[in-house]
Amino acid sequence: MTRIHDLKKEANSKADFLIFNQANMTYFSNFAGATALLIPQKGDNILYVNGVNYEQAKAETKDVTVEPIKRGENLMEKIAKRSSNKRFAVDMLPIESWRALAKAVGGEEKLEIADNQIQELRKIKDQTEIQLIRQACKLANIGMQKAAETIRPGIKEKEIAAEAEYAMRKTGSDGTSFDTIVASGSCCAYPHGTFQERTVKQGDFVVVDLGARHQFYCSDITRTFVAGKSSKKHRQIFEVVKLAQQRAIEFIKPGVPAKKVDQIARCIIEELGFFDFFVHNLGHGVGLEVHESPILSPDSKDILEKGNVVTVEPGVYLPGFGGVRIEDTVLVTKKGAEKLTTAAYLL
Amino acid sequence: MTRIHDLKKEANSKADFLIFNQANMTYFSNFAGATALLIPQKGDNILYVNGVNYEQAKAETKDVTVEPIKRGENLMEKIAKRSSNKRFAVDMLPIESWRALAKAVGGEEKLEIADNQIQELRKIKDQTEIQLIRQACKLANIGMQKAAETIRPGIKEKEIAAEAEYAMRKTGSDGTSFDTIVASGSCCAYPHGTFQERTVKQGDFVVVDLGARHQFYCSDITRTFVAGKSSKKHRQIFEVVKLAQQRAIEFIKPGVPAKKVDQIARCIIEELGFFDFFVHNLGHGVGLEVHESPILSPDSKDILEKGNVVTVEPGVYLPGFGGVRIEDTVLVTKKGAEKLTTAAYLL
Repeated sequence: MTRIHDLKKEANSKADFLIFNQANMTYFSNFAGATALLIPQKGDNILYVNGVNYEQAKAETKDVTVEPIKRGENLMEKIAKRSSNKRFAVDMLPIESWRALAKAVGGEEKLEIADNQIQELRKIKDQTEIQLIRQACKLANIGMQKAAETIRPGIKEKEIAAEAEYAMRKTGSDGTSFDTIVASGSCCAYPHGTFQERTVKQGDFVVVDLGARHQFYCSDITRTFVAGKSSKKHRQIFEVVKLAQQRAIEFIKPGVPAKKVDQIARCIIEELGFFDFFVHNLGHGVGLEVHESPILSPDSKDILEKGNVVTVEPGVYLPGFGGVRIEDTVLVTKKGAEKLTTAAYLL
Repeated sequence: MTRIHDLKKEANSKADFLIFNQANMTYFSNFAGATALLIPQKGDNILYVNGVNYEQAKAETKDVTVEPIKRGENLMEKIAKRSSNKRFAVDMLPIESWRALAKAVGGEEKLEIADNQIQELRKIKDQTEIQLIRQACKLANIGMQKAAETIRPGIKEKEIAAEAEYAMRKTGSDGTSFDTIVASGSCCAYPHGTFQERTVKQGDFVVVDLGARHQFYCSDITRTFVAGKSSKKHRQIFEVVKLAQQRAIEFIKPGVPAKKVDQIARCIIEELGFFDFFVHNLGHGVGLEVHESPILSPDSKDILEKGNVVTVEPGVYLPGFGGVRIEDTVLVTKKGAEKLTTAAYLL
């Protein structure tokens, strides 16, 4: 009930909250298969669920009353009738559904957007969430260790992904938190690899980016390996990225602007000779979604707080040659940062 | 280029198309990591891509010009400037982005919604798509066979999922098309299981619902097994669901209303004694998304056409006892339906 209570307290709105985003609904109800969640200023919280998930929702939710959506029912009208308030703060809706809701409540002026308030709440993880993410990170470590053991010249990228995912599943993962990336050779100059049909060659950089899920919560880790013997050039790029990550993590503590953390890593990479080659943000929040607030980027407005869980993932990508990315999921603690992913950095 | 050509021909709109849905962008550009796709009535098709995916997009797309979104750029303004037309048919956007786009183009009256037109196109699979789905279904068969071999009293649901997914990955799957469901005993009275921590017991129904992805395309199959020896009650429920599925598939051909196919299966289940226990739709389209058009449901307005790929998945769910679901992915052919998933129905 605390999370719902906090939402009402923080939001400073007199509207009833109406939630459609799946991660947001899971956050408040502990159930991932609902269609909408009504959190009125007064009265019961109602979780609207299709028939297919109704029995399961009744068994697995907490803090909410489960109401089935019957076949042919207009959900927006059903919700509008339920609210005495007739003003809604909505987390997010596609334009068509927004219009249907506006019609049901008697005009768009009855609706406001409340996504930001929920993101702000979700940004700070409570002890339960930290435990779940910690476990998801342990599973990711296991997957990464398996990937490290599997990589050798002659193996397909896809086989590496298969072994890593299998190791995580066997030790209890609920699945991956995103599509596993295994990118080798010149392909790992693309931060997001795709088909993984390539066969790893002697002297390839191999980037492995993976995550496990544990009871809805995600983890995210990247390591870069070399298949066979590494060269001086390999080690040089690797050390730059490693140093950038280390310094950025050392800089993290409550009160620090997220963009400053990005800047620390970016400056190191740029000054050490790879000016144009760090082509993405330094990191992102991790929780019920693998990408959420806060964002570590040059234009981020986030200020880090105790209880944030973020990735720190600098990279250098050289078209035609390959790339290096090193990523950990870290918890912002009272005094600094704790790495939750701890698989070895091998090169 | 055919797909883009078909869109312009079918849509009967003078607006420029502006696409944000990931599956839609993949459909037209063969690339899954873009942010927006502009298909103007005249001139080049532009795929807008963040820096992180820019090099990969240039290498992997077809029929489009790739343009990077620079840090700090307002995408909606960038797009508005590019279009001489200044009228857009948009596939889907959350309300906040819709408002930003409306502002950039000078008013909401310049925007229309075009998602339905794209869904209509995607509903009919071309030969390339059918080949990819066929392969995804073959991989799903392999996963299901592995699940069948793995199920026994004493094993955890999660271990069954691990083995099935590993078998698919090892034979070439790009990943699962959705979170694998393994639900046993009274848990499989919930059509969508979740945590899979349960240990399978002698005499449990075990529902396994899984899919593989092959180059963006999905498959979807469900089989229901009994751990150990099946009882008369097990076999009775199983045969009802099996019969309902068989009759529904036999009824499929071009020109048949999708709701009639649902009705065939639903009537059999209801008449054979399980009136309240088939709690979901009969099926859904499968393609770039695992749930897409057409829908096989009591209130569907779809008429089946040659080239549709749909699931047929009746089920009976008895709270406290367990459930049976049998599902195949089928292709609507000139004269009927072809099952693309072919794993054995074992009981």
